[in-house]
Amino acid sequence: MARRREWTRETLAAGVRAGDTRALARAITLVENSEPLAYEVVRDLYPETGRAYTIGVTGPPGVGKSTLIGALVRHVRQQELSVGVISVDPSSPFTHGALLGDRIRLADHFLDPGVFIRSMGTRGHLGGLAESTLQAMLVLDAAGKDVIFLETVGAGQSEVEVIGVADTVLLVLMPGSGDSVQALKAGIMEIPDVIAVNKSDHPAAKTMLNEVRSILALDLERAWKPPIVLTEATRSENVEQVWEEVERHRSFLEEHGGLEERRRRNLAGEVFAVASARAKTHLEHAVRDDPELRRLLDEVQRRELDPLTAVREIMEKVFKVEDGNSPDTR
Amino acid sequence: MARRREWTRETLAAGVRAGDTRALARAITLVENSEPLAYEVVRDLYPETGRAYTIGVTGPPGVGKSTLIGALVRHVRQQELSVGVISVDPSSPFTHGALLGDRIRLADHFLDPGVFIRSMGTRGHLGGLAESTLQAMLVLDAAGKDVIFLETVGAGQSEVEVIGVADTVLLVLMPGSGDSVQALKAGIMEIPDVIAVNKSDHPAAKTMLNEVRSILALDLERAWKPPIVLTEATRSENVEQVWEEVERHRSFLEEHGGLEERRRRNLAGEVFAVASARAKTHLEHAVRDDPELRRLLDEVQRRELDPLTAVREIMEKVFKVEDGNSPDTR
Repeated sequence: MARRREWTRETLAAGVRAGDTRALARAITLVENSEPLAYEVVRDLYPETGRAYTIGVTGPPGVGKSTLIGALVRHVRQQELSVGVISVDPSSPFTHGALLGDRIRLADHFLDPGVFIRSMGTRGHLGGLAESTLQAMLVLDAAGKDVIFLETVGAGQSEVEVIGVADTVLLVLMPGSGDSVQALKAGIMEIPDVIAVNKSDHPAAKTMLNEVRSILALDLERAWKPPIVLTEATRSENVEQVWEEVERHRSFLEEHGGLEERRRRNLAGEVFAVASARAKTHLEHAVRDDPELRRLLDEVQRRELDPLTAVREIMEKVFKVEDGNSPDTR
Repeated sequence: MARRREWTRETLAAGVRAGDTRALARAITLVENSEPLAYEVVRDLYPETGRAYTIGVTGPPGVGKSTLIGALVRHVRQQELSVGVISVDPSSPFTHGALLGDRIRLADHFLDPGVFIRSMGTRGHLGGLAESTLQAMLVLDAAGKDVIFLETVGAGQSEVEVIGVADTVLLVLMPGSGDSVQALKAGIMEIPDVIAVNKSDHPAAKTMLNEVRSILALDLERAWKPPIVLTEATRSENVEQVWEEVERHRSFLEEHGGLEERRRRNLAGEVFAVASARAKTHLEHAVRDDPELRRLLDEVQRRELDPLTAVREIMEKVFKVEDGNSPDTR
């Protein structure tokens, strides 16, 4: 094993710029641990970012998101584009570091210096997952990766924040994803830019495709009509077509000046999400460490103090915020 | 239409205590609008709460949660228990105020003075949905409702917060809920206390039951083994059995001193969730109203200022929090 190198702010930033794999790995580990050095390095690199194209890949667990990403990576590599993958899906084989029987040899990509794959733990981030993924994405962007995939699972608030930096959002479903189809139908899940219905050899795949198509057809106002592609990622079937649709979405955004606008909105949203997560962490630590705040919770439990009054006292103590229902906070 | 009555803190609290339907409706509207009067009334009523038993009903859209709740309400009413229902599911027929072809006559319950049904909008709450549902639940509790159902959709963070006050969590699935089953399997969805697999006349219902059963069987450490019931809510089939399982869970909690412990944890969690949501709202307003903070976002967009530095400046300005990676905030 190589002797552990001592990185400084300068050498780490230079290493990332040069696309050095060890520098990248180290920088992202520091990002995950919310280390001051990571913050400084990303700060130095930030003016050089904004060149990578970022694709958020989301969908329920078990639909084959990582297999599809693996196949997309292979396709993109044939075009000599460099690639970064960040996975925050706890059910992903990337995250497990194992291959779980995937026929696509993800391991091949691990050996390809043009591909950097990294999973992120889902707990313990100072500014939440939104912060870690944003910073890791910026590191990969500064390292000159042309394309970055962000893999996440589900459709809740935290997933939206994780893929909130994406230029294109790709939703992966499979036959049997009835809950997700219902969530799209009910307007609970946000409409993605491209949809892949994976495991197309399943007899119900076409039914699912038609169901999703009819839901999307209801939305007449959207200028971009999300295309739906039937894929079989384990055999790389129609993976090229998914990539073409991603590129078509990119062109659509670029033509209409929408890419800059989307990135502007995404960055503002991320700053806000990270600040909210930091406020939450700060609150958590304050309540944990302050006996007086813990005493408030005991009083709530004994029905002596109502929950909202406890909240107000906590807000005043922790954030110096007069957080009443007074007009100035509305 | 009756002339709008002017409620005062005293008359509204007295009306709620007496279980007066108009007082209840008014109090919950005030809660939804985060009105100071609502806060005062709940504060006055809080010492009298803690008697109702609260059941959180969750699951993907379209599985028949509201139909099952309707059938449970009918069953519970036969035992002469009074009932409150709060729905925060945007796909719920309760929320739409319409019946959407449900064969169970939900409307019957609307005419029953022993049942109070209320839907909550999903947007614009000062302290988030967690706050509104918690306060509404306390109002119904103070009004003497024996049983309160909280209906919510999905399995994300906000849903967990909404049903975070529940004594028993009931998850409703149906054949085709493959995504939810995968989420349970991957450990992404929290294990509920009781599971109903609805639409049991579907040929795949037993397969789904067995799948869920085998996932739960993997968890050997849990003292309470979540029972799974096959139901057909539109025909009230096995609804009694669902209720028996809820009661069995209640007895389990009470026998082991777990109910007090669970409520303690729930209340602390809710206070924390409400405070976090208030911090988020406060942040949102501050960024919206302050040109200097909006300027920070412009600088981020122009790649002049990195996102985390913008976050730090916002945290310092809005919350007077030195929110660095410095040791004192860890």
